[in-house]
Amino acid sequence: MVKEDCIFCKIAAGEIPSRTIYEDESFRTILDISPASKGHAIILPKNHAANIYELPEEDASKIFVVAKKIACAMKQTLQCEGLNILQNNGELAGQTVFHLHLHVLPRYQDDKVSFSWEHGKPSEEELDAIAEILFAFLDF
Amino acid sequence: MVKEDCIFCKIAAGEIPSRTIYEDESFRTILDISPASKGHAIILPKNHAANIYELPEEDASKIFVVAKKIACAMKQTLQCEGLNILQNNGELAGQTVFHLHLHVLPRYQDDKVSFSWEHGKPSEEELDAIAEILFAFLDF
Repeated sequence: MVKEDCIFCKIAAGEIPSRTIYEDESFRTILDISPASKGHAIILPKNHAANIYELPEEDASKIFVVAKKIACAMKQTLQCEGLNILQNNGELAGQTVFHLHLHVLPRYQDDKVSFSWEHGKPSEEELDAIAEILFAFLDF
Repeated sequence: MVKEDCIFCKIAAGEIPSRTIYEDESFRTILDISPASKGHAIILPKNHAANIYELPEEDASKIFVVAKKIACAMKQTLQCEGLNILQNNGELAGQTVFHLHLHVLPRYQDDKVSFSWEHGKPSEEELDAIAEILFAFLDF
């Protein structure tokens, strides 16, 4: 399903031109025109899903297979020294277009990409409590 | 296949205790003990793969399905306002344990997580050249 007025739906469908590096029946992968690093690409599902919570299982089962393909191509052709996969959900997490997408970020010495966080030091009891809640909810 | 002396292989196999929030035949998901944010979890394949380049297609086809499950559980139970999926390959990209893992990072107002990059401004010709190389290699 495509969402009207979603720019990534239009790009994924080929209605808005892009630099496509990979396409199959479910996804289009394009170069980011304001790249974080040389080769920065984004993988777009053709079916609209705003975020990971809405992603249909079928697309979820294919998207990381595509990510691996793109990553291997970048390693071979761009000789990147590292690579990040990043997927943001919600404005607070850095999502700017509300059509799910995976960033594939080749990394090089002296690039301007920075991922950082402070390591929290929760108590054993706090960790136990969070684990218990998630474990119970997931009920696998 | 399990790799000797790989700590994440041992954790995934249950040989080293962890706070497991989800487990199936292919993956174990545990809480990070030095979390970036409340509920920070990592998804570990039970079969050893150092990075995305080595990840078998079967695991690649399941790992994002697990990520969606965990993300939905976090949204429901932890009321996080955002969520990032991050997967690092290579030391330069922030990988510290060389057994592939997906970070699932719930995000909150005022957390200490920061993902930033400078947006490059490559020329049309530079972008065309990179797209051409990747497109030709991927040969889909």
